[in-house]
Amino acid sequence: MTLGTVAILGPGLIGGSLALALAERELAQRLMIYARSPRALDDIRAAGVAAELTGNPSEAVREADVVILCVPIEAMAELVREFRDALKPTALVTDVGSVKGSVVREIEPLLGARWIGSHPMAGSEQAGFAAARADLFEGAPVILTPTSRTPLEMEQRAAQFWRALGGRVVRLDPDLHDEYVAQISHLPHLLAAALAARVSPEALDLAGGGFRDTTRVASGSPELWLEILSSNAPALSRHLELLIRDLQNLRQALVPPVEKSLLLETLKAAHDARAKLPEKRRP
Amino acid sequence: MTLGTVAILGPGLIGGSLALALAERELAQRLMIYARSPRALDDIRAAGVAAELTGNPSEAVREADVVILCVPIEAMAELVREFRDALKPTALVTDVGSVKGSVVREIEPLLGARWIGSHPMAGSEQAGFAAARADLFEGAPVILTPTSRTPLEMEQRAAQFWRALGGRVVRLDPDLHDEYVAQISHLPHLLAAALAARVSPEALDLAGGGFRDTTRVASGSPELWLEILSSNAPALSRHLELLIRDLQNLRQALVPPVEKSLLLETLKAAHDARAKLPEKRRP
Repeated sequence: MTLGTVAILGPGLIGGSLALALAERELAQRLMIYARSPRALDDIRAAGVAAELTGNPSEAVREADVVILCVPIEAMAELVREFRDALKPTALVTDVGSVKGSVVREIEPLLGARWIGSHPMAGSEQAGFAAARADLFEGAPVILTPTSRTPLEMEQRAAQFWRALGGRVVRLDPDLHDEYVAQISHLPHLLAAALAARVSPEALDLAGGGFRDTTRVASGSPELWLEILSSNAPALSRHLELLIRDLQNLRQALVPPVEKSLLLETLKAAHDARAKLPEKRRP
Repeated sequence: MTLGTVAILGPGLIGGSLALALAERELAQRLMIYARSPRALDDIRAAGVAAELTGNPSEAVREADVVILCVPIEAMAELVREFRDALKPTALVTDVGSVKGSVVREIEPLLGARWIGSHPMAGSEQAGFAAARADLFEGAPVILTPTSRTPLEMEQRAAQFWRALGGRVVRLDPDLHDEYVAQISHLPHLLAAALAARVSPEALDLAGGGFRDTTRVASGSPELWLEILSSNAPALSRHLELLIRDLQNLRQALVPPVEKSLLLETLKAAHDARAKLPEKRRP
């Protein structure tokens, strides 16, 4: 199987991992990589990835059968405007943004039926090409968010692309996607940050594995996460409000005499929810 | 170096790991293990730990130079009353309870100068002897909580005991200990539980590594954690209240137009706090 010519725009953690995975699995006939910064291109050259590198997005997409937008959400629309005239009519364009409602509203008017939103649920608290890994997508859920304007053929090609990289493809409405990621990604991130931001230095020095894991995601790039959380502000604030309400009830329960039933109910529900987590596919 | 005769009362995750570590490092001349349940004793026998096993706490402590209480906090005082008449006058008694203020108030009147509180900051979301590991304490902070009644000699013997097992010994006032663990252990646990308890099944099915890590501790035993959180309810509810206030401010900031400055400040403070975490000593 070959995906033809693939263009990766923005070789950071996700884009870089895509490049490594495509190269390792020999999935692309030809691999084009665009980065705005010459230094980013130098890093990829130094890593010996078999790809053609360019600082010109139109040049990157001109022959491409598949184009993957891996730049930050707030930079996407401008980049699309830069390259879209060079795009082949049959090209498939997708992105890897972690928010989808606002991306659909911005990008679909620019690219129409050639574009479908993707969100690979893979990553780490690290950023940049230096953290990229060829196996990043193996076993990871990848959410596709077709709309009423997305041709079935494009959806199938996008699904085939991600499955070729080891992803577990799931299909979701863009706004429902944003609801779910608010719950499993954005709210956990905000909580981890609030928790780590508040702990005193003396307490921090005693922290063990539990604290380390609970707050791990908060080591992610503050600037990157500011954009992600802001892009999903409506869904995130809704779920945050519900969680604050739960926490207020738990605080009430902790006032002596401690009301153990609510605490136990919460601990049990959490325990049961975790037992239902999909199995971890990678070490 | 030898610690003489060591008695472990309650061979669960912590007590069992103590037994394995003492045996592996050949630190005890003689190792006594008490468990109330005959089945727990069978498990230890089956694991081939070189120890004398008994269902009678007085028998376990009679010859002991060091006694480690590894039973749940709410069972401690009753157990101490059962065995204390059998204790040698020179014995050192310590416990591994994860709350210290209430334990001091309960146990010190019963054992006086023979007792000092300990809290090894090691563990996992698993429980019981089956999860025990000989290297559990290597590099882990171990907090000692001497009071004005604790002889310096007892403190030094306790410190020597934990250092022999690889622990990094820290000394803290019992109530300050409870403040710190509220921040780095009990509040993170409660947040992880509240988060995991609220997520919808559909969202859960898409969860990746971030959600898994953020909520890992919530797979711990609900009954065990109910007791831990309840025992530290005053400090925990104080820190929970402060966190709820932070979360309310963050929610305000998320109302459009998103006030990015507060979000970014929190994300940066969290990022910096995590960079100051003590290095992980074990894989």
